[in-house]
Amino acid sequence: MTAAGDRTHDPALRSWVASANAPDTDFPIQNLPFGVFRRLGAGARPSVGVAIGDRIVDLAAVVGRGLVSGDALLPCQACEDDSLNELMALGPAPARAVRLALSDLLREGGAGEAHAAEILVAMRDAELFVPARVGGYTDFYASVFHATNVGSMFRPDNPLLPNYKYIPIGYHGRASSLVASCAAVRRPWGQSRAGDAGPPTFAPSRRLDYELEVGLFVGAGNALGEPIPVGRAEEHVFGLCLVNDWSARDVQPWEYQPLGPFLAKNFATTVSPWVVTLDALAPFRAPAFARPPGDPPPLPYLAGAPERAGIAITLEAWLCSARMRDAGAAPMLVSRGNFTDMYWTIAQLVAHHASNGCNLQPGDLLASGTVSGPTKESRGCLLERTWKGTEPLTLPTGETRAFLEDGDEVVLRGYCERPGAARIGFGECRGTIAPAIPASRPESMNYR
Amino acid sequence: MTAAGDRTHDPALRSWVASANAPDTDFPIQNLPFGVFRRLGAGARPSVGVAIGDRIVDLAAVVGRGLVSGDALLPCQACEDDSLNELMALGPAPARAVRLALSDLLREGGAGEAHAAEILVAMRDAELFVPARVGGYTDFYASVFHATNVGSMFRPDNPLLPNYKYIPIGYHGRASSLVASCAAVRRPWGQSRAGDAGPPTFAPSRRLDYELEVGLFVGAGNALGEPIPVGRAEEHVFGLCLVNDWSARDVQPWEYQPLGPFLAKNFATTVSPWVVTLDALAPFRAPAFARPPGDPPPLPYLAGAPERAGIAITLEAWLCSARMRDAGAAPMLVSRGNFTDMYWTIAQLVAHHASNGCNLQPGDLLASGTVSGPTKESRGCLLERTWKGTEPLTLPTGETRAFLEDGDEVVLRGYCERPGAARIGFGECRGTIAPAIPASRPESMNYR
Repeated sequence: MTAAGDRTHDPALRSWVASANAPDTDFPIQNLPFGVFRRLGAGARPSVGVAIGDRIVDLAAVVGRGLVSGDALLPCQACEDDSLNELMALGPAPARAVRLALSDLLREGGAGEAHAAEILVAMRDAELFVPARVGGYTDFYASVFHATNVGSMFRPDNPLLPNYKYIPIGYHGRASSLVASCAAVRRPWGQSRAGDAGPPTFAPSRRLDYELEVGLFVGAGNALGEPIPVGRAEEHVFGLCLVNDWSARDVQPWEYQPLGPFLAKNFATTVSPWVVTLDALAPFRAPAFARPPGDPPPLPYLAGAPERAGIAITLEAWLCSARMRDAGAAPMLVSRGNFTDMYWTIAQLVAHHASNGCNLQPGDLLASGTVSGPTKESRGCLLERTWKGTEPLTLPTGETRAFLEDGDEVVLRGYCERPGAARIGFGECRGTIAPAIPASRPESMNYR
Repeated sequence: MTAAGDRTHDPALRSWVASANAPDTDFPIQNLPFGVFRRLGAGARPSVGVAIGDRIVDLAAVVGRGLVSGDALLPCQACEDDSLNELMALGPAPARAVRLALSDLLREGGAGEAHAAEILVAMRDAELFVPARVGGYTDFYASVFHATNVGSMFRPDNPLLPNYKYIPIGYHGRASSLVASCAAVRRPWGQSRAGDAGPPTFAPSRRLDYELEVGLFVGAGNALGEPIPVGRAEEHVFGLCLVNDWSARDVQPWEYQPLGPFLAKNFATTVSPWVVTLDALAPFRAPAFARPPGDPPPLPYLAGAPERAGIAITLEAWLCSARMRDAGAAPMLVSRGNFTDMYWTIAQLVAHHASNGCNLQPGDLLASGTVSGPTKESRGCLLERTWKGTEPLTLPTGETRAFLEDGDEVVLRGYCERPGAARIGFGECRGTIAPAIPASRPESMNYR
């Protein structure tokens, strides 16, 4: 079930799509991630595509022109849909067959070139969507560095709770407010309390933050009541993406006890458009996080995961304020971390989630929680990066940032690089903060 | 927007369906709750129906025979589906028109009687389903008695947290594991820890519990970013049902910090089949819970709710063990409470949920949290009823129960009664505990 022998990630492979051969592209022929796009202009409908360089392969057009056959035909037909759910439900082998067929079509000398005008769409001429109809969205807390940092701010005497090293801590998020990359995110109103006493106030959040996370789309599901063994958990993973779990840090500490985050998180979560398969990531597998001496081993149902259960993905958060955009300044790098710093592997997240029989379904999204590493520069949210706002960032314009201001744009990026392998990128997960609804609106608003 | 003048709940109204006139029926002609059913036998598909006595009105058959027209036609056509979502999305007026049309058809002398054989299905000949495709399932914690009891067990020095009287505390639950009444519920495996130290173990839950809750189905939704004012919140409520939020009480305290309940809850949640509309409940509206002197008033965005924001629903939990069934014993009443004991109203739950712009969608399910009142006999879960197992119940067979055993059946019932009004019932929400997967299964199970 591994991708051993999968020729799609041969680093020597080149495509007749010129932009796919640029050394810094996220989408070389070795990647071929899946997404859902719509051609700009009237009448076009959302459709499944695969990214290649700065182009999108329209899978419906590939099927329509009879360019696939054999194992790839049925799963390509499953792509004639407005989401990836049907393809995801088929499990890993069919998606592998599609990528292999596309690799053949798109390689130098491949048969696709003669049909380029019909099967390719320029990314700049397309709108991109959340790639699946997400039934269940679960958010984990898998970075021990993040958990320790946040814990030490909110519970100084008790930063890392005793369950952390036994349980991949997670909670259910809100699927309805998942939004596509580039969607504006409105600053939410919420309850917060200034000190430790006195009544709360209800006002627009003044501590709006992002969280840099990796998302995992479930492929084949499990039946209710039937756990997924950790050793087979990756067979249920269709692929990975980037997730920005926007958070209102003033609302969160006031509301989260005893039942966890709710309105501090569920106003919006941004999902990147391209789902990178585990096959494409195979050259970047790495050992799982090395538990420090003294940490307990995982309980048996979470142990014995794949030997190289980690994935070396470099993850970056970039910030661009409205004034920076006006001044023509480039976005500023706020953090750079790596997915190998996560305490729990993706196999452990999946196996734990289903360990009580909870049924995962095709298209479900499991996010990792904020990816933070051991260094200051690798902290994946402003809460940690500015240490609760006490160490604000200085932007190129001279502005400072403790938390996000209206007009700020956050761009998350992820990529895998190493000598001897083609670069595999995730593209971008973008969002810009829009002002809160004015104070007069909540009671007198433009109600339908 | 109230049901004032709605003749469907005239207590003098009688139906030509004889069983609907029995004084103890849950489904008199004044109720007419919506659900989804399937005729038993090969080939039949799920379809929308309305309960009347011990019969179901098949709405597709009503439309097919041309028995509705005017305002009721379009919403009846929306019922030609396998869920209530399309009808729910239309908002309250269309559902009202359907109930009014059915009331006319089903009343003594009504035109439906001539078509009885075609439009009625006996409940005993039908399977009933979760009545909507639930996109988002949210569980609240709206009983201050429940919150105080549970808090005093888990945090004796700090039972009711300072946010409770300001925030309708809630969290996102798992929609995929919502199951219909009568479905078996498999005892989950999970992590728990015996004392306050030492490593946890992974084993079948030994403290399995039910929670007696009222569910609220969202009708018309709100757009992302657009709050719902509390004064208009009930316009977004399609109707109410019963919910059993099964809970593993040994898993819950070990896993719930800091992000809330997860695997202790998401293995199964049972939903009753019939959705009782707010129109049908109009005669049972009651003042909202009277906050004790000294409690803060709700913040403005949660204040000014309808004058009679409460609903007087009697709620009962019944238990029947396998040995009781074998002995032919009747189920035992474990608790009886009332929905008017909830600290937060349904309007407040809806308005709070959307107050940050979170988008509610047709078919979303919001559950109240365990309905417990001030007395021992009104406590809506075993954790409270047996005080963490220290005061076990004695069953008619002489068995004792601290928590649920395999084979135990829990039946939740809800109904509204008062002189001068027809009884409005919710039917039953049933579930039986099936044994956990054997120890050998999780690693070697019958894996597809």
